[in-house]
Amino acid sequence: MTDNMLPIQPQFRIFLSNLERQMSDEQKEIWIPKAERFEIFGSYCQTELGHGSNVKGIETTATFDAETDEFLINSPTISSTKYWIGSTGVWATHGIVVARLIVKEKDYGNHLFLVQLRNLDSQEIMPGCEIYELGPKAFQGMLGTDNGALTFHHVRIPRDQMLARNAQVLGDGTYIPPKNLKHSYGSMVTVRALMAEITGWDLLKAVTVAYHYTNFRKQFSRSGNGHESPVFDYASVRYRLLPLLAKATALVIVSQAIKRAYEEYTAKYLRTDDISQLEDLHLQTVGAKVYSTEITGYGVETCRIACGSHGYSALSGFGRMYANSINAVTYEGDNFVVAQQVPRAILKHFKAGTESSIPSLSYLSVLRNATTPQPLGIRSPSDWLKRDSQSFILEQQVAILVQQHMEDTKAGRDTSYACHALTMAHGDFVYWKGLWEVVDNIPSGEVYKGSMVALAQLFSLSIMTSAHIVLCLPLTLTAAQRASLRLAYDAVIVEVAGKHAQNVINAYGFTEFELDSALARSDQSPYEALLEGAQKSEMNHMQHLWPMMVDTRKMWRRAQRDIQKGGVKSKL
Amino acid sequence: MTDNMLPIQPQFRIFLSNLERQMSDEQKEIWIPKAERFEIFGSYCQTELGHGSNVKGIETTATFDAETDEFLINSPTISSTKYWIGSTGVWATHGIVVARLIVKEKDYGNHLFLVQLRNLDSQEIMPGCEIYELGPKAFQGMLGTDNGALTFHHVRIPRDQMLARNAQVLGDGTYIPPKNLKHSYGSMVTVRALMAEITGWDLLKAVTVAYHYTNFRKQFSRSGNGHESPVFDYASVRYRLLPLLAKATALVIVSQAIKRAYEEYTAKYLRTDDISQLEDLHLQTVGAKVYSTEITGYGVETCRIACGSHGYSALSGFGRMYANSINAVTYEGDNFVVAQQVPRAILKHFKAGTESSIPSLSYLSVLRNATTPQPLGIRSPSDWLKRDSQSFILEQQVAILVQQHMEDTKAGRDTSYACHALTMAHGDFVYWKGLWEVVDNIPSGEVYKGSMVALAQLFSLSIMTSAHIVLCLPLTLTAAQRASLRLAYDAVIVEVAGKHAQNVINAYGFTEFELDSALARSDQSPYEALLEGAQKSEMNHMQHLWPMMVDTRKMWRRAQRDIQKGGVKSKL
Repeated sequence: MTDNMLPIQPQFRIFLSNLERQMSDEQKEIWIPKAERFEIFGSYCQTELGHGSNVKGIETTATFDAETDEFLINSPTISSTKYWIGSTGVWATHGIVVARLIVKEKDYGNHLFLVQLRNLDSQEIMPGCEIYELGPKAFQGMLGTDNGALTFHHVRIPRDQMLARNAQVLGDGTYIPPKNLKHSYGSMVTVRALMAEITGWDLLKAVTVAYHYTNFRKQFSRSGNGHESPVFDYASVRYRLLPLLAKATALVIVSQAIKRAYEEYTAKYLRTDDISQLEDLHLQTVGAKVYSTEITGYGVETCRIACGSHGYSALSGFGRMYANSINAVTYEGDNFVVAQQVPRAILKHFKAGTESSIPSLSYLSVLRNATTPQPLGIRSPSDWLKRDSQSFILEQQVAILVQQHMEDTKAGRDTSYACHALTMAHGDFVYWKGLWEVVDNIPSGEVYKGSMVALAQLFSLSIMTSAHIVLCLPLTLTAAQRASLRLAYDAVIVEVAGKHAQNVINAYGFTEFELDSALARSDQSPYEALLEGAQKSEMNHMQHLWPMMVDTRKMWRRAQRDIQKGGVKSKL
Repeated sequence: MTDNMLPIQPQFRIFLSNLERQMSDEQKEIWIPKAERFEIFGSYCQTELGHGSNVKGIETTATFDAETDEFLINSPTISSTKYWIGSTGVWATHGIVVARLIVKEKDYGNHLFLVQLRNLDSQEIMPGCEIYELGPKAFQGMLGTDNGALTFHHVRIPRDQMLARNAQVLGDGTYIPPKNLKHSYGSMVTVRALMAEITGWDLLKAVTVAYHYTNFRKQFSRSGNGHESPVFDYASVRYRLLPLLAKATALVIVSQAIKRAYEEYTAKYLRTDDISQLEDLHLQTVGAKVYSTEITGYGVETCRIACGSHGYSALSGFGRMYANSINAVTYEGDNFVVAQQVPRAILKHFKAGTESSIPSLSYLSVLRNATTPQPLGIRSPSDWLKRDSQSFILEQQVAILVQQHMEDTKAGRDTSYACHALTMAHGDFVYWKGLWEVVDNIPSGEVYKGSMVALAQLFSLSIMTSAHIVLCLPLTLTAAQRASLRLAYDAVIVEVAGKHAQNVINAYGFTEFELDSALARSDQSPYEALLEGAQKSEMNHMQHLWPMMVDTRKMWRRAQRDIQKGGVKSKL
C-alpha cells in the first residue's frame, strides 16, 4: 500500500528540512547528525485543536526563564492542545513546537522550539508531556500515520533549543529579531512542493485501475449485434476517465518544474540566505496545492464511481486511495483558506504594475487594455486546437474572475468563497501553459510526442469546456461555437481512447503492488480476484452466531403458539 | 448509528414487497405469513458479478425438469455468481433469485424463483448453494450489511416456487406468458421511491453537524478587531452549507410526494392489477433517485470538508455518513446508466405530442414554439425572486439540453455522458416546481412560512446560478444580469443565515444519537469530545511495541560504532 504512508514519512523530511532552514550553524552541528542517523525522530507541531490555517492564533506559549536559562513550553487551554501532529501519537521522540515566545511578559509571536517528547531508551513519554494518538480517521484514511494530540504542562527546555537561525533570545532576555519576517513560510512551501507532484501520481494510479477494469467489464451492446461492449467504450466512462488521465499527466509534469524551482531556491538560500524568490515560490506552491489536490481528490472518486458497484468493494483499492488523497484539500492549509492568497498576490502585482515579472500572470494584460477584445473567430472544430483560441478562453476566464474579485473587494464583499474558483482558473492557465511548454520541447522525432500532444489537447479542451461558461457578453460563445467545441472535444477523446491511452498507461508502468487492486491483476480477472477476496471474508467463519439467528427467527413463532394456547402469561 | 442500516433492512421490506407483487394468491397465502413472522428471512438476488444495470445480461438459469416437476437453479459461469446481495452473506434463509427460465431448451428470459439458502434450524448453507460474505466495502461503508456472493450448483426447487403472479410454467412445460411485460419494474421502483426521501434526511444530518460545528469553531477575525469570528460567518462556509440545507429540504419534501404516489399506485395495483401509472412512476423515481443521490453523496462530503481538519476525524461521523450515502449513486441502477431513461421518456412524449399529460414535462412547450423567446428583462436583484424569471431559466436549461440531446441522437452520437446533466436539469425543474407547490400551500398565518419561503428562494437561486450558464445566445445573461443574480443570491444567503437557518435546524430536531458526531454534542464542546475520543485510541496502549522502536533507532548508531572500531565484519 504505497499510498498509505509509513509513519515516519513525510515527517522525517519535514523535520530535517526545518532543522536545516531554521537552526543556527551551531545547533545544526548537534542535531542534524542525530536526525539523519535516526537517533532522534522528530515531528512538526504546529496545528492546535483550536487553530489550523490561522497560525497567528496559536496559543501554546514558550516563556523565557532567565534564572534557569530555560523556556517553559505550556498549553494554557484545551484549544491549545497540539492536534493532528503526524508521527507523534506513538513514534516521535522530539517535536519542533510552534509557540508564542514570551520574554519578560512581552509576547513576540510564534517561534520554533525543539522539545523532547519521549525517552530515547524506553520510548516513555517525557514528564510534563501528555500525548494521545487520535484514533481512526474518516474512511479509515492514513491508517499508517499515528497522528498525535500533545499537551505541554510547563515543560522546561534549555535556551539553546529555540531554533535560532533567524530570531534569538540572549541569556539576559534580550530578543534579537529576525532579519526577515518571511522565513517562516518555508515549512509549508516544502510540503506543498512535494504534494503537487505526489497527487498527480496518486490520480494516475486510480485512472490506471479504472482503465484496466472498464476495458475488462462488458455491459450492454453498443452495436446492437448482441455482443456486449467494454464499458470503456461508452461516452459515460470515457468522458470521466480520459480527461483525468490528461489532468494527472499535467499535474505530474508541471509540478515537477515547481519542485525543481523550490529545490534550487533552497540550495541557494542555504548558501546565501537569499529569500527574494520565496514569495513567488509560495504563490506557486499554494496555487499548485489547491489545484492539484482538488483535481486528484475528486478525480480518484470519479474513477471509483465509473467502475460501478465493484468500485465500492474495499478490494478495488479505490476507498483507500480516496481516503488518502482527499484529505490533502484540507491539510497544509484548507483549500478555501489558502486559495485566498492567489488573488491577493495577483492584485498586489496588478496594482504595482509588476505582473510582467511573473510569467504566469500574463493574463493580467487583458485587464490593462481598456477596449473589449474581439470575440473569437472560430469557424470549425479544429480551430479549437489552436493555441490562440485556447489562451483566449483561459485568459478571459481568469481575467473576468479577477475583475469580479476586484469589484467585490472594492464593495467590501466577503470573497472567501469566490476566491476558490479564481484560484482554480489561475491553475488552469498555469498548468495549460506549463504543459505545452514541456510538450512543445519534445523533439519531433520522439515516438511519444504524438501521444503527449494528444494528451495536451485533451487537457486543454477539457478545461476549456468548463472555462468558456464564465465568459460574459459580448465574448460569450455562440451556439455554433459551443457545438464546435463539443465536436473538437469528442474528436480528441476518440483519438486518445483509440490511439494513445493504452500506450500512455503502459508507459507509466505501475506495478500490481503499487496499484494494489483486485480490479487490476495480471494473473486473475477482476471477477476471479473479487470472488477470491470474498472467500477470505472473516464473516464466513462466524458459525458461533448462527444459533442466535435461528433463535431470533423462532421467537415470533413461539409467541404466536403461546397466543394460540390461550395467551402469553405476563411474567412482569 | 442510524445510517448504518441493520442487516435485515431494507431487505425485509424489498422481500415482502416482491412476494406481494409477484406471487400468485395461493403462493402468498403460504409465504407471506412466514416472511411477516420472520420465520424465513429473504433477500432479492438480482445483480451478478458480471451484470448490474444490464439486467437482460443475467446468466443464472432456472431449467424446468418436467420429470420431477422442479426447476434447477444454476450458475454456469464465474460472472453469473450472484454478487452484492444484501443480507445474504450471513443472514438470509431464502432468496428471490432472478434467473433465465429455460423450458425444453427454450430461453424465456428473466423470471423470479424462491430458493431456500440456509437451513431454518441450523442456519447451515443448503446443499448445492455456495455463499460467501463479501468482506469490507470502500470507506468501511455499510458495515452492518452482510452482502453476499452466491453460486448455485444445480439446486432443485419445486415448480411452485417460481413466482407466478404474472408468468407461469404448467406441469407439462407449457409456458404462460405474463399479461404485461412492465411488471418487473416494481422492485426497483419500490427501493428508489424509498431512497429519494431517505437521502434528503441523510443530507440534513450532515448539514446539521456542520452547522453546529462551524458556528462553534472560530478562526481569523472578520471585523479586524482581533476577536476571532465563527467560521460559519465566512462566505466560504455559508455558500457551501446553506444551499445544501435548502436542497436537502427540497429532497425530503418533494420525494415524500413521489413516495405517496407510489404507495397509492401499489395499493391500487394489488386491487386491480392496473399498471397504467407504472411507467410514469418509474420515470419519476429514476429521476428522483439520480437527482437526490448525487446531491446527497457529494453534499455530505462538502459538509465534512467545510469543517476542516476535524471533519477528517472518524469521530466527526462524516466519514461514516459519506460511506453510507455515496454508494447510492451506484446501487439500484448506476446513475449514469439510469439517467438515460429520463431523456428517453422525454423524447417519447415529445415525439408523441403527449408531454402535456405529464406536468413535469411542461418545459417541452418551449421547444414547440419555433420562435426564439425574448431574453429576460431583469432590472434588479429582486426580479430574480419572481417565479417567472426562475421558471424561464430552469425551463430554458432543460429545453436547451433536450434540444442538444435530440441533435446528438439524430447524429448517432453516444449520449450516455451528456444524459446525466440533462437528468439533473430535469431534476432541478421538477424539484423547484414541487417545492414551491408545497411552500405556496402553507397558510400565510403559519409561523414557519417565512422560513420555508426563504429556503425555497435559496434553493431556486442556488440552482439558477448553475443553470443560467447553459443558456446560449441570444438568451445568455448580460454581465449586469449575472451581477444582479449574484447579488440576489448574496441577499438570500444573508437572510437564511441570519434569520432562518437555526430555526430550520431546530425544527428538524435531530437527536445526538441520530447525528452521532463528536462535533455536535450538547454536553461537550467539539474540542472536549475530540480530545476525549483521542484518549480512547487503542494505539495509546501499545507499549509492547516500544522496545522495537527504541531498537530501530539504535541500529544506525551501533552500525556507525562498529565502523569506527575498524569496519563491520561481513558475516555473509
